[in-house]
Amino acid sequence: ACRRQAGKIEQEMNIKKIAEKAKLASYKISCLLECEKNDILARIADEIHKRSKEIIQENKKDLEYGEKIGLSSALMDRLLLDEKRINGIVEGIKNIINLPDPIGEIYDTKRVKSGLVVGKMRVPLGVIGIIYEARPNVTADAFSLCFKSGNSCILKGGIEAKNSNKYLISIIKDILSDYGLSDSVFYIEGREVVKKLALQDKYIDCIILRGGKALIDAIGEGAKVPIIAHGEGICHVYIDSECFLGMAEEIAFNAKVQRPGVCNAMETLLVHKDVARKILPPLVIRLKSSGCEIRGCEKTREICPDVIAITEADWRTEYLALILSIKIVSSLDDAIEHINHYGSHHSDAIVTNSYTNAMKFLRMVDSSSVYVNASTRFTDGGEFGLGAEIGISTQKLHARGPMGLKELTSSKFIIFGDGQIRK
Amino acid sequence: ACRRQAGKIEQEMNIKKIAEKAKLASYKISCLLECEKNDILARIADEIHKRSKEIIQENKKDLEYGEKIGLSSALMDRLLLDEKRINGIVEGIKNIINLPDPIGEIYDTKRVKSGLVVGKMRVPLGVIGIIYEARPNVTADAFSLCFKSGNSCILKGGIEAKNSNKYLISIIKDILSDYGLSDSVFYIEGREVVKKLALQDKYIDCIILRGGKALIDAIGEGAKVPIIAHGEGICHVYIDSECFLGMAEEIAFNAKVQRPGVCNAMETLLVHKDVARKILPPLVIRLKSSGCEIRGCEKTREICPDVIAITEADWRTEYLALILSIKIVSSLDDAIEHINHYGSHHSDAIVTNSYTNAMKFLRMVDSSSVYVNASTRFTDGGEFGLGAEIGISTQKLHARGPMGLKELTSSKFIIFGDGQIRK
Repeated sequence: ACRRQAGKIEQEMNIKKIAEKAKLASYKISCLLECEKNDILARIADEIHKRSKEIIQENKKDLEYGEKIGLSSALMDRLLLDEKRINGIVEGIKNIINLPDPIGEIYDTKRVKSGLVVGKMRVPLGVIGIIYEARPNVTADAFSLCFKSGNSCILKGGIEAKNSNKYLISIIKDILSDYGLSDSVFYIEGREVVKKLALQDKYIDCIILRGGKALIDAIGEGAKVPIIAHGEGICHVYIDSECFLGMAEEIAFNAKVQRPGVCNAMETLLVHKDVARKILPPLVIRLKSSGCEIRGCEKTREICPDVIAITEADWRTEYLALILSIKIVSSLDDAIEHINHYGSHHSDAIVTNSYTNAMKFLRMVDSSSVYVNASTRFTDGGEFGLGAEIGISTQKLHARGPMGLKELTSSKFIIFGDGQIRK
Repeated sequence: ACRRQAGKIEQEMNIKKIAEKAKLASYKISCLLECEKNDILARIADEIHKRSKEIIQENKKDLEYGEKIGLSSALMDRLLLDEKRINGIVEGIKNIINLPDPIGEIYDTKRVKSGLVVGKMRVPLGVIGIIYEARPNVTADAFSLCFKSGNSCILKGGIEAKNSNKYLISIIKDILSDYGLSDSVFYIEGREVVKKLALQDKYIDCIILRGGKALIDAIGEGAKVPIIAHGEGICHVYIDSECFLGMAEEIAFNAKVQRPGVCNAMETLLVHKDVARKILPPLVIRLKSSGCEIRGCEKTREICPDVIAITEADWRTEYLALILSIKIVSSLDDAIEHINHYGSHHSDAIVTNSYTNAMKFLRMVDSSSVYVNASTRFTDGGEFGLGAEIGISTQKLHARGPMGLKELTSSKFIIFGDGQIRK
């Protein structure tokens, strides 16, 4: 027991040390010029390109492990790195090089009554912890976004991608060490270690949690570091009484079927009672023929009798699969109430021709992304023109919706005086 | 034991109920027009003015209690409400009426490659918990700021101001009930209840904690709701080698003496070694004659032998009193390192004539408000031109520094489409 205790304490010390080192490095990165950061990122991109064979070799170890533990084919696919995907990683870094550096911007300056000039300066957050799923391409992306925005980062990817991630990080750290900056990225392992990370509020400024409610509940409990959660997506499409039926069908079909395993796919379809008889029968047939299981309310089942009866739990479930819940509602207000009550405040859409209803839906639906006449599947930093994305926040503080470079920054007030004292 | 348990469960249910009711009310306030909110606030201001005698009567009960438990004269003064201070409360509400409503603003719109028009809409946070010290004037102020920004609020003031606060809240709730909005403010009591509030992450969107490190540690532990902390202020003034000595003395004296009991007062003075012999002797005499105790490093004591020897703990202490720590440093870099290491990232100032040093200090000091040639005492929403203030955030997420109306809001992405589906 004594030795275990000693081991435990050592590990805790290590996490604290790592956090402290990352903090010290963050002060160095915060002062780099944009061109300096870009040069370093370009060297990293080159090196990853050069070493793609070795990366693929390390990735094979992960794939073998994945096969052994019986990962689903979808997860195996996420795990895979081949020449094409490594080129994708390299292109991703080049894309981040091309984004404008947000750091050091001075804005909102005004002269106030005392004669002081008060403004804000955009600054890095400092040290960012990022916990993500088993997709090795996220490793290079997350580091590059943090580095470009002047932050150190401490990364923990899915255990299944361990070998690929560690090798990528070793490439990155090699280049960084030429500039005395190797402490600006660390890779850690194990859920228990993440819990300890979440206690280092003196050094870590924020933890971004990608990857589901269970992870958030497990890590969030007892955390002292502020957390930005990439929560679940129970997304809705509401088909209003006045709308183009063809557009409504296309949007609903796309939101459900185009990629059902992701957070911005639709889980529940709400249909106004006045158009339900017209829209539902052909849509249900089309969805079923794409392999989609349909669960519906009583009224839905009156129109489409072969639909499975829904339970209340369905309205609260993120299927991430080819399953759809359908509810017929009697008004826009009912639809909004259902979404705010059962949804996860991620992405919701209305299909309508009514200006009034569109504006009311935009205003009243309490979600990170609210659409008129488009599929919920567009919720993504790239699609929204942010240039890149580190996650999708489902909370309201600091960042909401897709997070880009700017969401990895903070501000400080800067005050220019000429001797002012307070009376 | 059984009855106690039942009582405990009932209280927990009540907090959950309160939070849920506040959330439902928040949806109503979120849709009010600016003129509607202003009319309601104006009626509340009038009613508070009309009932000032009754308010003073309730406040007397608090003052009697304060005397009984032996509150310091400073705290008794904070507690006191008289005609003048109630007029101040009324003026404060009118001031908030005059601030522009941030809600509903649409900004950062752009057309992206898919043809979607993507923008952001400013929205309320929802339900805000505010925990504050025994200053009854904060009650009306905090409610008005939350209401104007479309939020419900759950308030908990210092126990010493209990009667004044409850009476003020009853006036506010009376007026609100005419509009079916009385659930948009609640007043709760007891630290244990606050801990329960911090678990209602389904309904409460954020808790603002004013009032010191001990409170933050006590409430923050185990909280599920995101917290914005108004932390301690260990503020520094650094006197650079190139500066106007007269300006330096005035700023240092003002930052320490003008109001030593507040968070933006200076606790540590850093002086460049090249000017220490000139500036310290007269400044120390002036501070001492104002009743200030001086603690200094070895080099300070070589110049001013009657200064008390400092301990390392002093550098980390928020005195909130007429005590000053002095350190002589050999460079700007040393000063910045000291501030980032020992400070609380609140407010720090440099006095200098060097453009290069001023810009470096602004960039490198990791604090919410960084000054050139002015007293740290200006860190305040009013002084910074925000119109009002709900607290001063010492953290980096969401809001940093003095928080005004805008810091009580979030955003959502709004997307205007014409039938877009994801390929």
